[in-house]
Amino acid sequence: MHKVAIVGASGYTGVELLRILAGHPEVEITGVTSRQHAGKNVADIFPFLQSCLNFTFEDADPRELAQRSDVIFTAVPHLAAMQLVPALLDAGSRVVDLSADFRLRKCEVYEEWYQSEHTATELLQEAVYGLPELFRDQIASARLIANPGCYPTSAALALAPLLEASQIDQQTIIIDSKSGVSGAGRTVRVDTLYCEVSEGFKAYGLPRHRHTPEIEQTLSSLAESTIKISFTPHLLPVSRGILSTCYAKLIRDIDLSGLLQLYREYYAEDVFVRVLPEGRLPDVNQVRGSNYCNIGLSLDPRTGRVIVLAALDNLVKGAAGQAVQNMNLLLGLNEGMGLLMPPVFP
Amino acid sequence: MHKVAIVGASGYTGVELLRILAGHPEVEITGVTSRQHAGKNVADIFPFLQSCLNFTFEDADPRELAQRSDVIFTAVPHLAAMQLVPALLDAGSRVVDLSADFRLRKCEVYEEWYQSEHTATELLQEAVYGLPELFRDQIASARLIANPGCYPTSAALALAPLLEASQIDQQTIIIDSKSGVSGAGRTVRVDTLYCEVSEGFKAYGLPRHRHTPEIEQTLSSLAESTIKISFTPHLLPVSRGILSTCYAKLIRDIDLSGLLQLYREYYAEDVFVRVLPEGRLPDVNQVRGSNYCNIGLSLDPRTGRVIVLAALDNLVKGAAGQAVQNMNLLLGLNEGMGLLMPPVFP
Amino acid sequence: MHKVAIVGASGYTGVELLRILAGHPEVEITGVTSRQHAGKNVADIFPFLQSCLNFTFEDADPRELAQRSDVIFTAVPHLAAMQLVPALLDAGSRVVDLSADFRLRKCEVYEEWYQSEHTATELLQEAVYGLPELFRDQIASARLIANPGCYPTSAALALAPLLEASQIDQQTIIIDSKSGVSGAGRTVRVDTLYCEVSEGFKAYGLPRHRHTPEIEQTLSSLAESTIKISFTPHLLPVSRGILSTCYAKLIRDIDLSGLLQLYREYYAEDVFVRVLPEGRLPDVNQVRGSNYCNIGLSLDPRTGRVIVLAALDNLVKGAAGQAVQNMNLLLGLNEGMGLLMPPVFP
Amino acid sequence: MHKVAIVGASGYTGVELLRILAGHPEVEITGVTSRQHAGKNVADIFPFLQSCLNFTFEDADPRELAQRSDVIFTAVPHLAAMQLVPALLDAGSRVVDLSADFRLRKCEVYEEWYQSEHTATELLQEAVYGLPELFRDQIASARLIANPGCYPTSAALALAPLLEASQIDQQTIIIDSKSGVSGAGRTVRVDTLYCEVSEGFKAYGLPRHRHTPEIEQTLSSLAESTIKISFTPHLLPVSRGILSTCYAKLIRDIDLSGLLQLYREYYAEDVFVRVLPEGRLPDVNQVRGSNYCNIGLSLDPRTGRVIVLAALDNLVKGAAGQAVQNMNLLLGLNEGMGLLMPPVFP
Repeated sequence: MHKVAIVGASGYTGVELLRILAGHPEVEITGVTSRQHAGKNVADIFPFLQSCLNFTFEDADPRELAQRSDVIFTAVPHLAAMQLVPALLDAGSRVVDLSADFRLRKCEVYEEWYQSEHTATELLQEAVYGLPELFRDQIASARLIANPGCYPTSAALALAPLLEASQIDQQTIIIDSKSGVSGAGRTVRVDTLYCEVSEGFKAYGLPRHRHTPEIEQTLSSLAESTIKISFTPHLLPVSRGILSTCYAKLIRDIDLSGLLQLYREYYAEDVFVRVLPEGRLPDVNQVRGSNYCNIGLSLDPRTGRVIVLAALDNLVKGAAGQAVQNMNLLLGLNEGMGLLMPPVFP
Repeated sequence: MHKVAIVGASGYTGVELLRILAGHPEVEITGVTSRQHAGKNVADIFPFLQSCLNFTFEDADPRELAQRSDVIFTAVPHLAAMQLVPALLDAGSRVVDLSADFRLRKCEVYEEWYQSEHTATELLQEAVYGLPELFRDQIASARLIANPGCYPTSAALALAPLLEASQIDQQTIIIDSKSGVSGAGRTVRVDTLYCEVSEGFKAYGLPRHRHTPEIEQTLSSLAESTIKISFTPHLLPVSRGILSTCYAKLIRDIDLSGLLQLYREYYAEDVFVRVLPEGRLPDVNQVRGSNYCNIGLSLDPRTGRVIVLAALDNLVKGAAGQAVQNMNLLLGLNEGMGLLMPPVFP
Repeated sequence: MHKVAIVGASGYTGVELLRILAGHPEVEITGVTSRQHAGKNVADIFPFLQSCLNFTFEDADPRELAQRSDVIFTAVPHLAAMQLVPALLDAGSRVVDLSADFRLRKCEVYEEWYQSEHTATELLQEAVYGLPELFRDQIASARLIANPGCYPTSAALALAPLLEASQIDQQTIIIDSKSGVSGAGRTVRVDTLYCEVSEGFKAYGLPRHRHTPEIEQTLSSLAESTIKISFTPHLLPVSRGILSTCYAKLIRDIDLSGLLQLYREYYAEDVFVRVLPEGRLPDVNQVRGSNYCNIGLSLDPRTGRVIVLAALDNLVKGAAGQAVQNMNLLLGLNEGMGLLMPPVFP
Repeated sequence: MHKVAIVGASGYTGVELLRILAGHPEVEITGVTSRQHAGKNVADIFPFLQSCLNFTFEDADPRELAQRSDVIFTAVPHLAAMQLVPALLDAGSRVVDLSADFRLRKCEVYEEWYQSEHTATELLQEAVYGLPELFRDQIASARLIANPGCYPTSAALALAPLLEASQIDQQTIIIDSKSGVSGAGRTVRVDTLYCEVSEGFKAYGLPRHRHTPEIEQTLSSLAESTIKISFTPHLLPVSRGILSTCYAKLIRDIDLSGLLQLYREYYAEDVFVRVLPEGRLPDVNQVRGSNYCNIGLSLDPRTGRVIVLAALDNLVKGAAGQAVQNMNLLLGLNEGMGLLMPPVFP
């Protein structure tokens, strides 16, 4: 059994890691930390886990935690992660960091979009962006995985085949994304109260949401040129789920069945990407609770635009599930181990 | 008191007309028809109206109904409307038709998108498109109002100021819209069952939703040139509300405050369009139950795109409320009469 | 025009007062206070009211506010109300208090259930419990109205006819209530975050929710004997609405149609109580946004129990609407003035 | 691998069986039938299962299906089940029937409550009521399991310890239950449309819901005397989940901690019943997607009543999960095999 620990397990992402790891056949959880809840049992804070897991939240020393762990998941806010990760690596653990701190390769981009100084810049080049479908080869041997953001995962999976095949005009990419509320975390805020969200829908964070440079970095890397996108996040009245509707102008003569064939080939080895058949479009309720990303396409000959829609569960493929997928690769396990549960519908 | 009747009052749009007209100080309802529910009291089918209204659904002869009505609202499906409306007009009533049958000016466009023959083509030129903020002058004297679709209302109000001021590249317009479930009506379908919609979100009707030519007709008329758009409707897990997120490339040098000023001036006389202050974006829960359309803007200098967001209640400003606004104009009443109730929040 | 002010208008109840009063034809709002939001425009905090109302939140001196108001609504937390109300009365205003501070007639009951000292006990006898359907005569001439709690309103209206007609065994009353989330207010708490409430349902506050003695006081007063009840509140995943399911053993021989007749007669003059016909049961979505309370009955001859179900909108008939109904009575206006809007469905 | 088949897999219960069985390590699905969808792939009807399962719905002959199956789940409506099950048993398969047809031991009770003739009465005595926590011993050797209803499972688990320990007055039992919409199935009906349910809440089926005699049969069997209850089902705006709030008068002197101890001992061997610690009450969102039933207690010394609250997922412990639990017992497997997935929260 491989030993894993979670630092910062008291938010929705952290507890989703616990849910997934509870069913993983080849890992043992050796530590679960939460400064806020230290000393309490996991089930006191998350009663749904009663009798599934029996852990006490600790406020452990990172170095000591690293010594009893092969892989540590850090599910703490950005800025906190960059303080913590170097010590964990030094102590010999490998790290899957779910914050934004190691996702952007360039320090100046981080500092511009996050309006904060980066204090662990030496790790920015070493960190591997943990999107297995695109960067699988680099992940297995990494010490530090920067687990992608939820929106960027959906956008990158939606657009990668088109960019690598040079099918679209890179200046015309628009990503209109809609996310469930759990993406905003469990911290109390008026905006995420039930009465504010239910029967509501709005865009937010315009025009400079922090996932923009992360998406651009991945797309640019795939296209091998600098890409700027329009990215508009919206808040959906659902707990889990992201749908990204991506638009671009086609620059070659290809029909819908050709595009679908391109996607099926591109993702032929990727168990978690489900390219939908022609005429079917993704719905976030078809991936809930699972690590799948559903992709559907439409092509409008009137305008010459392709529309790619990608749906995933922001807490699973958009966070904790992808982190476990990365962990599997780090540990040399089958990539899908512990992650193949079907979605929960309805 | 002016006399009004509703034909086809058993769907969500029809009953919303009843709700609004129940509070209108200068009209009297003289007939409410429903083939399906004929002989039953309105409150038997819609218990929320018990003691608010006391009507029996009729299956009245159109000609006879027209004789006791100054204005008739037809809230029947497309194809049914084109059968009915000529007789109502002949009998001397004025008509606000909430179906799609008289919205498109060109018969061939209707027949292409609705895949049906149009049997009342002589009325297509006469019908006035009932979007008061854009075509107020033509409405007052019309015999037949084609009440706009819900999506087209949001898109047209969002983009009109930009098009009339020639601020955007007309080839770059993308309208990403999200609608609540009541837009799909009260007819039973698996797709609109609670369990299929709740905690779900998807696009549908791609790439040829029937509101596309209606939007294009209005935008083209404003721009005085032929415009083709990409239009993507999505199904939101809310009962009421549409948010349209509209993208276009700016072609002139203007900043956000200039754009907002343009919108405020354009809609200065329009009580139902609320241009939001800089930094605030519309939410469908801020217009629920009301006839308001909230408009917010964002501008991204990185990409040169403007993003206009418009929110309305699809059953009010997107259907029944706008129909009453048109009726007020037809009858020479104050445009906002009976329609100034604030939204219901939360 | 009568002059009214609202103290503490920044919660859901306060802003619902604003929504309702905005449409009231015979009152003028002369002040809106909020310590938290003082200096901000109402629409900055509640954008849904943009262009409906134009007020700046004040942090006014109570005495000064009272001088410019005929009636003041106090929508502040309990304990704060008892500090404030004496000064408002002294300054000559009449007060409708929406807190719990003046609802319980006996100081010792208040202190037991609220675990706090009552500092305005001299007003407990003077305050009139503002449930117009039961205590209309005392309201008109009162200086201080204790506006009832949302649960107690539903329970009292559900059971009053049975108790006054001595139809039930008073020892067998069980009230199983379910409330929407807005009842918990707009203060941030983990429990009322969207992700905690959506797709959830639970009881809370057992076995000693503070509305218990308030319900018992009203029922005891109607029955002219001391009644103890079981009261179980639950949290519903809806924004607005309470349904109370009330059980009691019948002690007389009466059938369902006899019971319904009793209810119809009891509430014959009460425009806001809608007794549903046999076979129809209340749904909270049939009263949303309105001041109606819908009541339905069932009788089970197998067990000898009657079940009375009462539905209302907790923010309207359960709070702000009832407060305006009380205000109308205080001011000698028609009881339903400004309150007859139909529910918003769907 | 044991061979299992599902007859009638096109409703929510049938497809939930597929979801659960997809992850079961020791069974192989040998047939999936649906008259409605025969010839279509499971993923065409339920896209969430794409790549999880690859089956074509058949319209198989029952006898032939039985020959390739050790256990058959029948997830067809009542009346259809009694036509089908005898042939399956004759052909040598064992059957877990999810309909109501074999739950009531007495033919006359069935015929009274279901208003239909029972045509397989010879099986009523043989069928074993499949509530493992209460009747585990009889299940292993049965040929025919009558899988309990969702409400009856919650009520029986809530009240069994009290009844067996003779702690309550059997004449005072009231069960106030609330169920999610999936309990109403996937058949189209106006009542279960999103717009009718969302932001709504109502009781239904009063006073004679068909689960009443099923609950009474189980409780009477536990108490060894005839029990009549009041049972009130309500429709919750959630997809999954039942909460039953059960009331009874205590007849012995026991405190809350004594009661909780009684429950912990009663369910000490039952992995799927989670007795919550004092002060914690069950929420349906804490069991979603899992086979757990959470039980919490409250005791009100003022009234002498105990309140027991039981929450479960109506599609899992209330239907498909319990069916698999029964199957495990029939096949001699560990009772929890394939069923220990934690709930999905949020």
